[in-house]
Amino acid sequence: MIYDDVFRSAVEQLHTEKRYRVFADLERRAGEFPHATWHAPDGPRDVVVWCSNDYLGMGEHPKVLAALTETANRVGAGAGGTRNIAGTNHPLVMLENELADLHGKEAGLVFTSGYVSNEASISTIARLLPNCLILSDALNHASMIAGMRGSGCARKVFQHNDLDDLERLLEEAGPDRAKIIAFESVYSMDGDVSPIGAICDLAEKYGAMTYLDEVHAVGMYGPRGGGIAERDGVMHRVDVIEGTLAKGFGVIGGYVAASKPIIDAIRSYAPGFIFTTAIPPAIAAAACASVAHLKTSQVERDRHQSQTLKTKIALAARGLPVMPSETHIVPVLVGCPEKAKAATDLLLSDHGIYIQPINYPTVPRGTERLRISPSPAHDDALIRGLARALDAVWSELDLPRRYEAIAAE
Amino acid sequence: MIYDDVFRSAVEQLHTEKRYRVFADLERRAGEFPHATWHAPDGPRDVVVWCSNDYLGMGEHPKVLAALTETANRVGAGAGGTRNIAGTNHPLVMLENELADLHGKEAGLVFTSGYVSNEASISTIARLLPNCLILSDALNHASMIAGMRGSGCARKVFQHNDLDDLERLLEEAGPDRAKIIAFESVYSMDGDVSPIGAICDLAEKYGAMTYLDEVHAVGMYGPRGGGIAERDGVMHRVDVIEGTLAKGFGVIGGYVAASKPIIDAIRSYAPGFIFTTAIPPAIAAAACASVAHLKTSQVERDRHQSQTLKTKIALAARGLPVMPSETHIVPVLVGCPEKAKAATDLLLSDHGIYIQPINYPTVPRGTERLRISPSPAHDDALIRGLARALDAVWSELDLPRRYEAIAAE
Repeated sequence: MIYDDVFRSAVEQLHTEKRYRVFADLERRAGEFPHATWHAPDGPRDVVVWCSNDYLGMGEHPKVLAALTETANRVGAGAGGTRNIAGTNHPLVMLENELADLHGKEAGLVFTSGYVSNEASISTIARLLPNCLILSDALNHASMIAGMRGSGCARKVFQHNDLDDLERLLEEAGPDRAKIIAFESVYSMDGDVSPIGAICDLAEKYGAMTYLDEVHAVGMYGPRGGGIAERDGVMHRVDVIEGTLAKGFGVIGGYVAASKPIIDAIRSYAPGFIFTTAIPPAIAAAACASVAHLKTSQVERDRHQSQTLKTKIALAARGLPVMPSETHIVPVLVGCPEKAKAATDLLLSDHGIYIQPINYPTVPRGTERLRISPSPAHDDALIRGLARALDAVWSELDLPRRYEAIAAE
Repeated sequence: MIYDDVFRSAVEQLHTEKRYRVFADLERRAGEFPHATWHAPDGPRDVVVWCSNDYLGMGEHPKVLAALTETANRVGAGAGGTRNIAGTNHPLVMLENELADLHGKEAGLVFTSGYVSNEASISTIARLLPNCLILSDALNHASMIAGMRGSGCARKVFQHNDLDDLERLLEEAGPDRAKIIAFESVYSMDGDVSPIGAICDLAEKYGAMTYLDEVHAVGMYGPRGGGIAERDGVMHRVDVIEGTLAKGFGVIGGYVAASKPIIDAIRSYAPGFIFTTAIPPAIAAAACASVAHLKTSQVERDRHQSQTLKTKIALAARGLPVMPSETHIVPVLVGCPEKAKAATDLLLSDHGIYIQPINYPTVPRGTERLRISPSPAHDDALIRGLARALDAVWSELDLPRRYEAIAAE
């Protein structure tokens, strides 16, 4: 067997389906976000990044960079071990305390990434519960699904944000069985929000645990950046809150916050937590500075919302198919992988605007889109430039203008 | 159902089995490795770390710290997105080139951790191959097992480093079926080494792919730090080499190096790679500086080996049960979780020496041990101090002195 041929043809299939991904080689410039350098095949070029998940630009915040560099110079680069074997470092312990406080929980636990935090926590929690049934929102992230699969437990999917469907499944499951409702607060590809309070009502009524992914909300919503659950005043009702340090907080890593018994169980039983090197002290210190800053500073959140609103209005005013979104995510529908790629190629080559097309499997086929994420650093002039550029590209490629018309197809 | 009670009793079981893990809160001091500050419950204390996986002390190397802080100040803290969506950063692209070169492969791919690199790569490679059978060494790391489980493919375990057993399974599988031999070079809890060349012979004879985990060898073995496969002159015969940036290289992150089709397939199909934020540019730059330095500098590797040898001799001279190890790992057998914990508690409280006991599930029950990892920074005086301290603790707790006697029990 020629193994390489198998892999070659697997990749060839992505070319055929027009969803082969080419990574743009970017170089950010601290203090100039969202401007960045794109290392194009024919040399470096200046671009404006409109699809970053560094939603608030905290990755270049002076407090964050000061904490990072000061800690690296003082304690070194890596943690030097797993959490249990020489790798638990003081800044990481401080960060976990900060996160527990952020979410009003007894304890926090940090992982190397948000993906790992979901996979490791969900699989471990579910495996420890006898005969556990996981009730999962239809649009849950790949990392949550990986955790459910890894648990080996039964899983039922409820229609996205559909309380009736969820209640039907809870009723069906009966009162005696352990049940986890796993869902997100902000669904990042559509920008819609879940009814956390109502889901907690159902959880209480039917005796289920709640596991909430707030990765696209922490830092950005709630008076202290605790997320949508904090904003809605229901944070104390959620059993496990999962978040990331890589988006609103601008660094890297994932975490969960919950009661002490839950955290201690995950800490003690999750292979994805136990058998991996702890995050570097400098990264922990940087994330901690970011979390602490956003607990008391509202200016980033306010401007994030205002610039998002202006972006939505500017695009809609030009008849671009902005999908309805309650949050800082601005999805613009294209509905075809080839055209989405063509649009973003034109934006980059002719307008210096970097937006990545979103294709299957990140979104369902036929809903390919551009996913735009304005930040506090995207000023009004940049927003006007984006609207003009999209308008020009939509005309040049003769892309459909009305969201409703495309969605109805 | 009182969920917290379930988690409480799961943790209680670990207390009963005497393998509940308490993390030591450490603060390293750049330039002073292996000296560190231990944030004990009653206040900070100075300790000597003897169980770090920063094997060469590269985590405090001036070149590594300069690359980390310079890059953070220049481009910011986080990558800002997944590899596909705004997160591919220039230092990371450079690092992947450096790693491909290190292993003489066409391409390299970096992950957030070594755990994720194994899980994502093995599961993806195996899933793409038709009717794949994975042949797995009995002592493979938890992350490799997670990858095999995730693939959903058939798996057969061969006796540790046993070529006859492996050949038997290869013969049984027949010539038509896709087969992956998954193994490590240095097994980190025993410190023994696999016969890579002979395994490649079998792979060629029976038409199998080879997947080699070199996490406890990269940076430390081979004339350029390419690992045991490089040292043995067989690196070109291995299909996929997996390594870490968190141990010999002193930073964080994992990677694979292989042919372009294999790397492109993993890049394109692995959820654990696709749906996670890229590692920060500063971390990539730090790791890159470390890899580049160790390609040309032999002094760290030489002193690592000399100090390891001195440690083994010093311990054996005092009749301590040093397990046979061909590498830089110095395991000292205790054989009981409670006594292993008591020994390390005494070392810490009375001698200022931090070594973590290694318990199940990291090692089989009954083989609980201290796992000592000397570095180039552990000088002769520290080695003498370690031998004296272990001798005193062994006497105080009346621990068995002879490895052979314990092993035969």
